[in-house]
Formats: sequence, structure tokens, C-alpha cells
Amino acid sequence: MGLGPTRSPMIEWARGYDRTTLSSDLTAAIIVTVMLIPQSLAYAALAGLPPQVGLYASIAPLLLYAVFGSSRVLAVGPVAVVSLMTATAIGDLARTGTEAYWTMAITLAFMSGLMLLLMGVLRLGFLANFLSHPVISGFITASALLIAAGQLKVILGLTVEGHHFIELAIGLLQQASQVHPLSAAIGVATIIILIWARRGAKPLLQRLGLGPKLSDALAKAAPVASIAVMAFFTWVNQWQDQGVRIVGAVPQGLPPFTLPSLDWSIWQQLALPALLISVVGFVESVSVGQTLAAKRRQRIMPNRELVALGASNLGAGVTGGFPVTGGFARSVVNFDAGAQTPAAGVFTAMGILLVTLLLTPALFYVPQAVLSATIVVAVLSLVDLRTLRSTWAYSRADFSAVVFTIFTTLAVGVEVGLMGGVLLSLLLHLYKTSRPHIAEVGLVPGTEYFRNVLRHQVHTSPYLTSLRVDESLYFANARILEDKVNAVVAERPLLKHLVLQCSAINNIDASALESLEAIDQRLREAGIKFHLCEIKGPVMDRLQRTGFLSHLSGEVYLTHYQAVAALAPDILD
Amino acid sequence: MGLGPTRSPMIEWARGYDRTTLSSDLTAAIIVTVMLIPQSLAYAALAGLPPQVGLYASIAPLLLYAVFGSSRVLAVGPVAVVSLMTATAIGDLARTGTEAYWTMAITLAFMSGLMLLLMGVLRLGFLANFLSHPVISGFITASALLIAAGQLKVILGLTVEGHHFIELAIGLLQQASQVHPLSAAIGVATIIILIWARRGAKPLLQRLGLGPKLSDALAKAAPVASIAVMAFFTWVNQWQDQGVRIVGAVPQGLPPFTLPSLDWSIWQQLALPALLISVVGFVESVSVGQTLAAKRRQRIMPNRELVALGASNLGAGVTGGFPVTGGFARSVVNFDAGAQTPAAGVFTAMGILLVTLLLTPALFYVPQAVLSATIVVAVLSLVDLRTLRSTWAYSRADFSAVVFTIFTTLAVGVEVGLMGGVLLSLLLHLYKTSRPHIAEVGLVPGTEYFRNVLRHQVHTSPYLTSLRVDESLYFANARILEDKVNAVVAERPLLKHLVLQCSAINNIDASALESLEAIDQRLREAGIKFHLCEIKGPVMDRLQRTGFLSHLSGEVYLTHYQAVAALAPDILD
Repeated sequence: MGLGPTRSPMIEWARGYDRTTLSSDLTAAIIVTVMLIPQSLAYAALAGLPPQVGLYASIAPLLLYAVFGSSRVLAVGPVAVVSLMTATAIGDLARTGTEAYWTMAITLAFMSGLMLLLMGVLRLGFLANFLSHPVISGFITASALLIAAGQLKVILGLTVEGHHFIELAIGLLQQASQVHPLSAAIGVATIIILIWARRGAKPLLQRLGLGPKLSDALAKAAPVASIAVMAFFTWVNQWQDQGVRIVGAVPQGLPPFTLPSLDWSIWQQLALPALLISVVGFVESVSVGQTLAAKRRQRIMPNRELVALGASNLGAGVTGGFPVTGGFARSVVNFDAGAQTPAAGVFTAMGILLVTLLLTPALFYVPQAVLSATIVVAVLSLVDLRTLRSTWAYSRADFSAVVFTIFTTLAVGVEVGLMGGVLLSLLLHLYKTSRPHIAEVGLVPGTEYFRNVLRHQVHTSPYLTSLRVDESLYFANARILEDKVNAVVAERPLLKHLVLQCSAINNIDASALESLEAIDQRLREAGIKFHLCEIKGPVMDRLQRTGFLSHLSGEVYLTHYQAVAALAPDILD
Repeated sequence: MGLGPTRSPMIEWARGYDRTTLSSDLTAAIIVTVMLIPQSLAYAALAGLPPQVGLYASIAPLLLYAVFGSSRVLAVGPVAVVSLMTATAIGDLARTGTEAYWTMAITLAFMSGLMLLLMGVLRLGFLANFLSHPVISGFITASALLIAAGQLKVILGLTVEGHHFIELAIGLLQQASQVHPLSAAIGVATIIILIWARRGAKPLLQRLGLGPKLSDALAKAAPVASIAVMAFFTWVNQWQDQGVRIVGAVPQGLPPFTLPSLDWSIWQQLALPALLISVVGFVESVSVGQTLAAKRRQRIMPNRELVALGASNLGAGVTGGFPVTGGFARSVVNFDAGAQTPAAGVFTAMGILLVTLLLTPALFYVPQAVLSATIVVAVLSLVDLRTLRSTWAYSRADFSAVVFTIFTTLAVGVEVGLMGGVLLSLLLHLYKTSRPHIAEVGLVPGTEYFRNVLRHQVHTSPYLTSLRVDESLYFANARILEDKVNAVVAERPLLKHLVLQCSAINNIDASALESLEAIDQRLREAGIKFHLCEIKGPVMDRLQRTGFLSHLSGEVYLTHYQAVAALAPDILD
């Protein structure tokens, strides 16, 4: 067995590592580090944690992902939706700012790490597939709105409580008269600058005569620059004395070594949130990783990703961090900046470590409204109205899943919203497959094709009825076929043969097999023969393991045409 | 609109009613009445209720079913499994023999009636389809074992508590030394007689010179005859003074007019059991009804059956009864005895009413061990080991659902067992469809057929890969296809075209559509074109409502052969 990508991805890329790769990875790392500083502070605040926790969560997890991950460019760390879920999970159990709150965040990261690791080892990555696109889209849209509403209160200098959208909205309206004008001005100005920087900064810098590559890199530094400018003004004017809340003292030094809580009741209370955080983080991370890997004809391995994200979160848990996953924006930046290997992640971790060791005093005067503005701008791009429009056009069932998930997440909360959405989409799927399309078909004259008698001019016979089921047969739809057959038999006194065309049947489970036996038995008692045709290979293999085919009152035909030619040649004329 | 079977089934059969039909129905009614007397007493005892309640439950429900039901021969009344479920539901809430216990049984029947009626009006009959055959089979087998174990304690004259199989079994073993020999002798003797009567009575009577029809009718009266004989011996020897428990005084007279409890907390506690009883009763009843209707080329309408069973249970609730449904054995007897119309049910109800008014004193000396013996013999035929064997051979997933349902029902209880089985079979189905068979296919030389490259000698090309998915695409399996495509692309540097054969795809949901879009996007970025072929009509209709086909990097081909002929003609050589 070779040391291919199924062994250790690290060995694979470390072998071919050279000066060019190093230079690409270093450049990408510098850009991502600059982007990650305000993000990690902001997402820590969103999760209800002190700013240094965001930095801690951006060091060890990156190193561990570089060792275990199968994506070459995925950038892990704190992300918006997972931070919101962290705040929701702990919000009811402990008060923000307390030691207990932080310990729970550490515990949550640790548990989520264990769960992801276990899912990876047991190869349970497929479980994430039960989060449908409509549910994810609805969930992320609603989370983004929740996050934006929550940050609005910080920007406006208000102290509204609550994790539900409606609570937040009502609270904001009630306190509208108490808005802190200076905070609001700082926040709104930052939002405007950041939105402009996304589109306008690069062209402006290029027009000023800078090269396209440098302009791009500088434009990506716009968030950090605007934070620096706002911090500078705050320091000059000592705005904190006028009520502008600032980040304040951030402890300098290495991330601490921490352990999760050993209180069993806390583990019980955090188990469900940890599971949901794990699954959502995994889905987000894998879809980013797959999109970027495919652009270079590389691939990622979902079960390997589970292990890597598990290790990252365990890493976050033992170094004072909180739950992390692969982030969309920063991974795209890493990719665009030319990162070639996970070493870029290692360099980014070193960059953040340097900041943690040396630069935290520079963060003292950063206004909290500026961090909130960073979050608002980041999450607004997550609001996905396109999916609402496209699912409405494509499928009402999928549309209702999106709307239900958005509404429940906003009205009740992230956990119920997510689980409700998953449950609804499962039920809708089962409902759909439980009412399969069953067509009565007839022979298209002059051909060997059979088509729906309701839609085409076809030949039929009073002695023979042909049915086609457009779905695999399983317990939820087996009886529908029985009903249909009973109805056909009851209304056709001359009937002698019933042919079931199985071309669309990918699977027949034990319930459906019993139904077919019951149908055969009842038809036999009514003097009608039951025939099958166009059975697929795997279905046939399985049927041959039973006595069904040998007891069948009729025959099994390879093609429908052969069946009709043998049983009712008058149709052929 | 004519007065067809979709209007009122009663009008349909009442029109053609004549002397012959009357005579057939009357004969059948007498045989069923004789059979129903011991059964209704026994099942009332099984449900923990006084004997007359069993009689009450066999009057009004039969009349109401005759008015609303769509089966001509279904015989409703108390049945074993539903009686066990009734005992389990109420057992924890009230003490057997109390007025409160009886009121709860009445409430349960009333609630179950309302639920069935509602399901019928809302046309929710399809919900019962989610009870798979393996789950029903496992549940009924386990229930039969539970019932038999419970009756064994009555036969042995013991007083073991508990509704779980293990509790019962341990209790029986612990009290083995306290067995009441006379009760045990009566019970065992009755069991032997009843088992013999099933097979041996009819031939014996025929050998004694009786006609086959009369022999058959008399053989069916064997249970009643053995009860009468045992009661006679008990009276002669006054066995009740020696500790043999007897039925005792059964109140004479019309069924009482009763109302359900109006205590909201009782409704809450009984809601789930009532729902489970409704669904199990409905499934049992419909499958009996369908089997018998098909024999005469008649049919039953599931949603109409819901209304009829709902009315029957409401009827049971307001006349002092307990939950009822269509019973297998008595319906078959009714059918075999020649019942032509539901009037047979009306006559049976009158027969039971006569017994209730006049004959209850004759039941005084019936030993309880005899009734228990009747139940044991009836339920042992429900133990279904054939399904265990056949599902083992056919599908391990279905087999595990049977075993899980049996085990959970025995170890934890009927409600958890049933719901656990349903949940497990849903999860297994989703798991199965979430990992569809995806085959890479190639052209069979000299034909236009495409087959799995792993199983057949086929032509392929390094520039073109053809994939066939044997399952509808939906959220749970959409990413598997992405993974597969990524893997193919990563290992084939020369690839220019990817063709997806859609012949087995009956449906594509919004998640799968997004996956296809993501696949197309990634392939495009890797310089590969994505083509589709053999899309089914309804799937095509739906895809055309989106922009997917117009943005597709490749083409849509009617047949796979056309696709390959256009894209990689070298394969055709």
C-alpha cells in the first residue's frame, strides 16, 4: 500500500515542498492573518466571550487542521453561525462574562471535537447529508438575520436581552430613544466603509497607480485598517469617557492550557447543542472545501474532514478556545491569495500567535461597535433570498422547508429551527415517495414502447392491464399499489392478466414483497394472472433469493413488449 | 352523480337485498355470534375490564360499522392486540376493577374514534403505510407472546404483576411453587381441546355421519361448547370453593349510555396510546378487509374504513365499551360462513344483545382459566416466525427491524416497541436511499446498451466518463454524487466530458438540483463539460422550470448512445 492520499495528506504535500510553495503559502498566510484578527475578536464577542478567546481559537485548531485535514486551502477558526449557536447553547446556562460561561464554551468545543472525531472514525459523515440544501439555506439566512439584529444593539449602544428575533426586534424598538449617538455613528460609519471597501477599494487603489495584486491585498486589509483608524480616533478623543464601549485590556501571552468541565449535568445539557454545532460546522466546512478543491481538480474526503475538524475542536477545547470550523470567506481569500498547502494554515496560526503575544495592547481602544459592524457586513452576505425564489419555482415542498426553517429559527431559536427543518424535509420526502406516480400504460401503435393511457393514443385490451410504478417499492408506498390493483380489478370484469412494468423500481423491500405476494394471491383468487416485466438486475437478484417468482401466478418477461406479445397479441394489431 | 360506492355503501347493498341474501347473512351471523361470546368476555378480561364490557363492545360498534363500512364481511369487535394495548395504556393510570379504570377505557375508545374519524375526513389513511410489514409482524408476534405470558398467570392461578415480558416471566418462575393445580388442569385441558378442535373436530364429526357444512359449523362452536362443559363441571363440583376463579355475576340488561372522562389531564395521558391503538387497529382491519374483498373482486376504501372504524369506536365509547377494530379470525369465519352484506354484522349485534339481555346468568360459573385458554389458543396463531425467516433471507435491514420491534416490545412495552420499530424502519429506508448505487458504465460493443464497467467487457474512453445513479436524487444522497464526481475527476487528468445517465432517476429535489449545479460549476472550472441523458418526462418538465438546463456546460441527450456518438465517437469503434 502506497502512502497515497488515503494515508496522511501531510506526507503527500510535505514531500514536494519547495521555495515557490513556501512563498505562496507565506503571502496567503499574511493576508488571512490580517483578515482573521478582527473576525476572531468579533466572533468571540458574538459568542459572548472575551476577545482573547477568539484569538486562542485561531491558533491550535489551525495547526491541527494542517496535520489532519484533506483540504489544502480550508481556513478554520471561529465562524459566525457556530458562534451564534455557541451563544444560544450557553446563554441559558451561565451569565456572559463569567468564568463558568467560558468553561462551558471550552466544554462545548471539546464535546464537539469528540463527536466529530467519533463520527469520522465510525464513517458517519453521511449523516450530514440529512441536512438538505433548503434547510441549510433557511437556517443560515435566519441565523444571519438573528446575528445582525443582535449586533445592531451593540452598534446602537443598547442592552437588549434575548436570543429570539422577535424579542430582539421589540427590544430595539422599545429602546429606540436611548440610542447612544456616538457609538451608532462609529458603527454605521464602519459598516459603510466596509461595504464600500468590498467593491470600491481595489479599483480606487489601482487608479492610484498600484499593481492589481497589491491593490487586492490592501483592499482585503481594509477591515483591519478601518478598525485601526477607529481605535486611533477613540484614543485621541478618549471616546470611552463619553460612553463608547471599547474592547479594553486583552491579556497578553500564550493560550492557556484548559480542560472541559467534568460536571456530568453540564455535558448532558450541552450534548444536543454540541451535536448540532458539529453537524452544521461539518456541512459548512465540507461544502467550502469541496468547492475549492474541485477548482484545482483536487478532492477532499468527508470522513477525513470529520477527524480533522474533531481534532481542531479538541485543540480549541484544551487551549481556551470555543467551537470552530472551516470558514467560507477566509478560505476563499486563502485560495485566491495563492495558498498551495496547509502550511499556509500553520503560518496563519503563527501570525495570530504573534498578535496574541505582542499586539493585544493595540486592541485596547477598539470600539465594540466597530467589531459589530464587521460582523454585520460579514453575515449580510449569508442572507440567501435566491434559494427562496428558486425553490418556489422548482418545488413547493422544498420551498415550504426553507420558509419553515427560517420562521422557526427566528421565532423559536436556532436549535429547534434546525431540527424542525430536518424533520420536515424528511417527512416531505417520505410523503412524496409514499404516493408514487402509478400509470396505466398501453402500447404506442407501430412501436415497442408503452406510454400512459391518459396522455397518449395507445392500444389496450379489456383482458390485460399494464401498470407502471415510477418509484422504488417500500413499506410506505406498498399499499398504494395494492389499492390501485384492487381498484383496477373491481372495475374490469373481463380482466385476465395484470402486468407490472418494473423499469423504475430500484428497490423492493420486505414489506413491498409481501404486498406483491398479497396482490398475486388476491389476483389468483379472482382468476387473474400477475406478470412482471423489465425488472432491474439487482432487484431480480434479490427476488430470486425468495420463493416469490416461483409461486407467481404469471410469468416474468424481459421486456414489456414480449409480455404483451405473449399474453394479448390482439393489442399488437 | 350516481349513488355509486363513493356515496353510501349501505344504499348499494340494501337495494339488492332479498331472501337468499338474508338467509346467508343470518347463518353467518349465528356462527359469528357463537364465536364472539367467549372472545368478547376473554378480551375484556385481557383489557382488565369486567366481562359485560366485552359484550357491550360487540353491539353498537357492529351496527355502526354496518352503516359506514366499505367491507361487506369485516366483523368488528374486541381483538387481542388492541385489548393488550388498552390494558397497557390504562394499567399505569388506574387500578384494574375500579370505576376509574373503566371510565378510562371508555375515554380511550372515544378518543380513538375521534382520531380515526378525523384521519378519515382529512384523508390521512396513508399515514398507516408507515407501519412496515416487518414492524407489524414483529409487533404482533411480541404482543402475542406478551398476551400468552399474561394469560398463563391466570391459568396457573397466580397473581404476577407487570406488563413487560421479562417481569412476567420472572414472576411466573418465582411463584412456580404456588401454582393452583385445579385451575391449571382446567386451563390446560381447555387449551388441548381447543387446539384439537381446530383440526380434528370437523373430520371427526364428518366421520360420525354429519354433513360437511354442519360439521364445520359445529366445529366452530367448539370453543363455546368447551366453555359450557367446563362451566357445568364447575357448577356441579362447586370448584370456586376450591379456589378456582370464576367469571361470577355479570349484570343483565342493555348496554349503558356512557360519556368519556372530561378530565383534560386524562386526555393528555391517553392521547398517544389512543393514536397508536387507532393506527394499529386500522392497519389490522384494512389488511383483513382487503384480503377478503379481493376474493370476490370487491374493494374497500381505506379512508372510508377510517370513518367507519371511527364511528364504531365512538359507538363503543358511548355504550360502555372499549376500543374495537376488525378482527382477523371472526371476519374469515363470517366470510366462509357465507355472509353477503353488512347486514350479517347487524344480526350478530342483535345476537350479542340477546345474550346480554338474557343469558349472562349462564356465564356465572365459567372459570377464568377457560377464558384465558381461549385467548392463548387465539394468539398463538399470531406468532409469525415465517417473517423472521423470510426477511433474514431477503433483507438484513428488514430483518433487523423485525427483531428490534419484537425485542423492544417484549423488553420495554407495546408503545415504545411500536414507535421504535417505525422509527428504525424509516431510518433504515433513508440510510438505504442515501447511499445509492452509482455505476460507471461503458458501451457494450456492437450494441447501443451501456453496462457497469466492473461487471461487463465494455468500451470506455479516457476523455469521457459515464455515470448511472440507481436512485432518485434527493437531499440525503445528493452529496454522494458530488463525492463520486470529485473522485472521478481527481483521478482522470485527460477527462473532457462527464455524462450522467438519468434513466433510474424518478425525482430530483431542490437540494439535488443545487448539487447538480455545483457539479456543473466545478466541472466547468476544471475544463470538463457535464452532460445529461435519458431524463424522464416528469423530471424534465420540472428541470425546464429552472435555468439549470440553459446554463449547463454540456448538452442534454435523449439516449446515452446519442451522447457518446456525439462526444466520443472513438468509443463506438
